[in-house]
Amino acid sequence: MTETQLSEKLIVNCLPLTESEREEFLRASGDVRQVFLADPALRGTMLWQADVPRDMRGHVTAVIGNIEPDTLPDFVNLEWLQTWSAGVDRYLKAGTFPPDATITSASGAYGQTVAEHMFAMLWALMKNLPGYLDQQRRHEWKDLGRAATLDGANVVILGTGDLGSHFAHLVKSCGAHTLGVRRNPNKPADGIDSMYGFDALDVLFTKADVVACFLPSSPETRHLVNRNRLELLRDGAILLNGGRGDIIDEQALMTQIGRLRGVGLDVTEQEPLPDDSPLWDVPNCLITPHVAGGYHLEATERRILDIARENVRRYAAGEPLNNIIRH
Amino acid sequence: MTETQLSEKLIVNCLPLTESEREEFLRASGDVRQVFLADPALRGTMLWQADVPRDMRGHVTAVIGNIEPDTLPDFVNLEWLQTWSAGVDRYLKAGTFPPDATITSASGAYGQTVAEHMFAMLWALMKNLPGYLDQQRRHEWKDLGRAATLDGANVVILGTGDLGSHFAHLVKSCGAHTLGVRRNPNKPADGIDSMYGFDALDVLFTKADVVACFLPSSPETRHLVNRNRLELLRDGAILLNGGRGDIIDEQALMTQIGRLRGVGLDVTEQEPLPDDSPLWDVPNCLITPHVAGGYHLEATERRILDIARENVRRYAAGEPLNNIIRH
Repeated sequence: MTETQLSEKLIVNCLPLTESEREEFLRASGDVRQVFLADPALRGTMLWQADVPRDMRGHVTAVIGNIEPDTLPDFVNLEWLQTWSAGVDRYLKAGTFPPDATITSASGAYGQTVAEHMFAMLWALMKNLPGYLDQQRRHEWKDLGRAATLDGANVVILGTGDLGSHFAHLVKSCGAHTLGVRRNPNKPADGIDSMYGFDALDVLFTKADVVACFLPSSPETRHLVNRNRLELLRDGAILLNGGRGDIIDEQALMTQIGRLRGVGLDVTEQEPLPDDSPLWDVPNCLITPHVAGGYHLEATERRILDIARENVRRYAAGEPLNNIIRH
Repeated sequence: MTETQLSEKLIVNCLPLTESEREEFLRASGDVRQVFLADPALRGTMLWQADVPRDMRGHVTAVIGNIEPDTLPDFVNLEWLQTWSAGVDRYLKAGTFPPDATITSASGAYGQTVAEHMFAMLWALMKNLPGYLDQQRRHEWKDLGRAATLDGANVVILGTGDLGSHFAHLVKSCGAHTLGVRRNPNKPADGIDSMYGFDALDVLFTKADVVACFLPSSPETRHLVNRNRLELLRDGAILLNGGRGDIIDEQALMTQIGRLRGVGLDVTEQEPLPDDSPLWDVPNCLITPHVAGGYHLEATERRILDIARENVRRYAAGEPLNNIIRH
């Protein structure tokens, strides 16, 4: 990094901010220039976008926002990218990310919203709410029989990072035992009663009242929930996926779903779920269109802003950044 | 009570019991005769019934089970009735309950099932699940925007007995502030952060993110949630009723429901809800057919059995009974 570059630091901030939030970001950047590009009206919508004008891109040293990966070659002086997403796969995969630049993510901002959404799906399935809503649409008043509870239930949680750990806290507070699965089972996680490695999956599936997936997509996790494992699930178990769609083999799921209490999917192998997928019409399958994350909660926006503002302060002060994914 | 009656105590037990549970009840009754009338196959169904043969009724001194109130005159030697319901209104209203006999209820057995069911409805409404399920039925994959959370929410709970207190615990464990309303606000309740009297209702309605009703039916609670109070609710608030249907003025509710996030009703003014009620078709109104209570959870059955068995032991030993409603 040359002296010239240092003196010419320019932060482009694409977060949709209120007036007072802009002032806080300006205080954080101190003497370093920071320009704001976002339409504040995008705040509270699901449509955040980072669009840096072409003629500005060459001058920018730091960007806050998920710019399009194919525009990266234009950012010839980029030192730092702060995403508002938790994942940064798109930038790493693109192969065009400047080799000397740093990526920091908003990891940690999404645990609450994803965990809560999957928790809501779980309770809906335990209490037969999809069936009751179908009856309501027909003006039908009929008891659908036994419900389930989390009190005393074994909840197996695949992936125990921000999402899985937050989910574990929620189910544990309702009386569940939480059994976590992660690559390194010697590393504990908040909210997890006992931790296992992936070699324990088969045994855990036989004991589970609920299996909840929060794993990212990778060659190792693809179809981790396959036909063999689905067959190990108890009758009346519940399966949830709030991670990536290809963790579950959907074709195999169709053969087993009838004997489960319910399946809650916020993600599917192909998204949007194709119109001819048989999953749409399975009565005990509850599907939401990949909405557990995103900006559905104000709390998520606040956390993203907190992460970004602290990193702006650190960038301006020359301190090490938080949430570094690639350096 | 004459010596003759004492020596002729006869308990008729109408609980659907397993073989080993019958043995436990027999141990509890010791030297006092106890006969079992229920079909064990009713266990796990919603269809428990207490049917004591006409020629036996005159000899019975104690009944476990909700016999028909109009058969009470036949039970001329009745000393004690243990219901499996929490409410005993039907027996008190009938006016035919023997003046010297005691009623004990299963109060305390239903808090978990009712609270959990209303908690499930609350989460479904916060996360737009009724809307997503309607979309699913049309094979539609579309983001419905902002969701709500309990974290930091003000939850006003009307009625803070077994049901309301259990509900308070659940929402509090997810980050909510719990504001209870009961006749005597100086009497605290588990899970309630701050307690108010009914005179504070109007103010509480203006502050509530969620209002949850767990009140019994009475002249004082009828239409407690009236048009004026509904108008005090914030846009986007959620209203739940797991108590008795006539607490909410449904006609007034129809005028305000559009600006609320959602309404969850397990009970309605008239049950079943009449086919022509406009509530059936309100998109953000989730209706279940009075199923929050009942025997939907094994845990409820276990609690009823525990209450009844301990009272059988006390009755046989001549000790004071628990859960006395009328003595």
